[in-house]
Amino acid sequence: MTCELVFVGTELLLGDILNTNAQYLSRQLAAIGISVLHQSVVGDNPDRLRQVLETAFSRADTVLTTGGLGPTKDDLTKEVCADLFQKKLVLHDESLRRMKDYFDVKGVVMPKTNEKQAWMPEGAVIFENTNGTAPGCAMEQDGKRLLMLPGPPREMKAMFECSALPYLRQFSDGVICSREIRTFGIGESSMAQTVSDLLDKENPTVAPYAKSGEAMLRVTAKAATETEAEALLEPVVQEILQRLDGYVYGVDVPNIETAVVRELLRRNISVATAESATAGLIAKRLTDVPGASAVFGCGIVSYQDHIKEKLLLVDPRVIEKDSAVCETVAVQMAQGARAQSGADLAVSVTGLAGPGKDDRGRDPGLAYLALTDGRETFTRTVNTGQTGPDCRDFNRTVFSSQALDLIRCYLRDHPDAAPNA
Amino acid sequence: MTCELVFVGTELLLGDILNTNAQYLSRQLAAIGISVLHQSVVGDNPDRLRQVLETAFSRADTVLTTGGLGPTKDDLTKEVCADLFQKKLVLHDESLRRMKDYFDVKGVVMPKTNEKQAWMPEGAVIFENTNGTAPGCAMEQDGKRLLMLPGPPREMKAMFECSALPYLRQFSDGVICSREIRTFGIGESSMAQTVSDLLDKENPTVAPYAKSGEAMLRVTAKAATETEAEALLEPVVQEILQRLDGYVYGVDVPNIETAVVRELLRRNISVATAESATAGLIAKRLTDVPGASAVFGCGIVSYQDHIKEKLLLVDPRVIEKDSAVCETVAVQMAQGARAQSGADLAVSVTGLAGPGKDDRGRDPGLAYLALTDGRETFTRTVNTGQTGPDCRDFNRTVFSSQALDLIRCYLRDHPDAAPNA
Repeated sequence: MTCELVFVGTELLLGDILNTNAQYLSRQLAAIGISVLHQSVVGDNPDRLRQVLETAFSRADTVLTTGGLGPTKDDLTKEVCADLFQKKLVLHDESLRRMKDYFDVKGVVMPKTNEKQAWMPEGAVIFENTNGTAPGCAMEQDGKRLLMLPGPPREMKAMFECSALPYLRQFSDGVICSREIRTFGIGESSMAQTVSDLLDKENPTVAPYAKSGEAMLRVTAKAATETEAEALLEPVVQEILQRLDGYVYGVDVPNIETAVVRELLRRNISVATAESATAGLIAKRLTDVPGASAVFGCGIVSYQDHIKEKLLLVDPRVIEKDSAVCETVAVQMAQGARAQSGADLAVSVTGLAGPGKDDRGRDPGLAYLALTDGRETFTRTVNTGQTGPDCRDFNRTVFSSQALDLIRCYLRDHPDAAPNA
Repeated sequence: MTCELVFVGTELLLGDILNTNAQYLSRQLAAIGISVLHQSVVGDNPDRLRQVLETAFSRADTVLTTGGLGPTKDDLTKEVCADLFQKKLVLHDESLRRMKDYFDVKGVVMPKTNEKQAWMPEGAVIFENTNGTAPGCAMEQDGKRLLMLPGPPREMKAMFECSALPYLRQFSDGVICSREIRTFGIGESSMAQTVSDLLDKENPTVAPYAKSGEAMLRVTAKAATETEAEALLEPVVQEILQRLDGYVYGVDVPNIETAVVRELLRRNISVATAESATAGLIAKRLTDVPGASAVFGCGIVSYQDHIKEKLLLVDPRVIEKDSAVCETVAVQMAQGARAQSGADLAVSVTGLAGPGKDDRGRDPGLAYLALTDGRETFTRTVNTGQTGPDCRDFNRTVFSSQALDLIRCYLRDHPDAAPNA
């Protein structure tokens, strides 16, 4: 079964709204084994909409539209679709009654214009709207299926889950399962080279992705049942884990901060942060993970030199000699944060986020990181190579990811590390 | 001039990534008066891509693609587009050199596979990639234009602004100018009501938007020249500013942190932060603004009670009696941060980000904020009303925006405030 998505709305063509429905529906359909080979966006224009629908049906047996079911005269999806399937629109009494109830609850009389929303294609399966007024529907004819859902994401999602998904499931064959293998410290190209022979596989497929200095592999299997799909996945995932040993921070983990906080929680090891260039971003990312307060209590953002000296006990002579962006300052910042906080570990970053050069003429993208456990101190020098006018955000993100990875590598290399207190 | 957008990438069809490029490009093209009537998404499949491009050229004179310029053999946009325009791919030496430099800076040897990215359609205008490896390009033939940009948004945006936009501008007729009036502290509905009569205007148009607890109005005018468009905008913008007095934090300012940092810099007033629930997010947002180091030097993330007591001198008896989430703790945190940092102002947040209730059974979404200038202390209580399973991120964002707004309101209400030192 092949499904094409058609998003109707001039606001999408003007960039007034972000098309989050596209991602949501694509993901949902993939999960039940329905292939989406095309998505189209078209404005509130009946001729163009009809053309787009005809093209869609020339290459897919099912078309799902969102948008254009509203009460205004611009909203024409139902009219165009009914015409395409040569159906009349008829008043659907139950939908009209539901809409009147919807307004009653709000203590408002239903505007006359809304009645339009209850006129549905003859013979269609009606989808109730639990979060708004416009009902959706599905029509079937000569092996072609056409589903219409409202545009507002909250209404669309509820209707998709309650009505469209059960309707579509009866036509889908098999299931798709996937695993995300997330790495840090290896580039997308090198990662892809390491597993290049696996990238040609057909089932499961193996596909590389890159984002903000991280690389990921997704392994996806299609089978009749979940058990069979999992059986296809398992040996390939194990093979990849072996080849990428040391770089993988998690499988099916949303991000590196989650992997790090989970491992800290599992081993009851606490961490403190001392941040200059990232200025709160490491602390923010650690505490994005619910429950982080058990292992993270203290972060010091020392964005100016005198704060590094006062709160983190960095030696002013070092700053004087080598500037605040050097390895020694990173080490002293980590040691200072550990002393101030009493945490088991402390991690620090000092660097040049950009966009400008520093007063020694050094390019942005450079950072020094340190991690101390009170006995040993580990350092890392990072150079992102990003110096452009909008490099700042990227550099800060990568610096903070590197700091999180420094914690991950410490925990990996010190399986016996335990809380101090 | 009509432009069709074609987004290439199987990851878009699987819903792996959100297509933010669609909104960005649509908005950018609308702003220079280029009509976008269709957007299409297609996977990394040469036959389907070619078909989509042919359909696109049957209804538009210009097609802009993103994606499929990577180093792997899945990346085929350039090959398919060159073939469609009957061009050969030839090695572009300058691009190859730039890519080698890009890897050199990172201290990495360029993988052999990347060389593919420097092979460009013969005769094409080459667009430099300042944020990555893949160059983009534009081809023109028989009045048809085809532009290719990379898929990663950071690379795409920089290339669009530096290269594709100037290239396209020569073909557009008329200009569209707009102003974004950004507010804080007023809901979207109330804001829209205040200016409801203006929402029916046709030129300039006035449109309301809401995001993460903020509301914005965009005023857009179309005219033959920029001067004429500006003349249409000006009186409407002034009218709106007057009606929304007190809520507007800026016009054409990207966000509230930029507005706050600019005002702090202008008046040379420094600020420190003390964060619990937001745990670094306020510091991170202040320092997203380049140059913030002149007015922000110190942030203390006190995510555990003993750190509030040790570093911010919060009275343990207050925490014992009223928990760490109360107004008194917020006040003491701000006072502590000011004392530790020596900054002119200090702002603090303590609250419940969620998703769970606290041990007193209070729902997430509640926060106490304080700001002190050493003489007076101002407080604010926030309740976002968001308690759902994924409320955490929203609540932290709103708490941090409220803290930034507390600084904004202080500066607005104290026009004579000056640095202490």
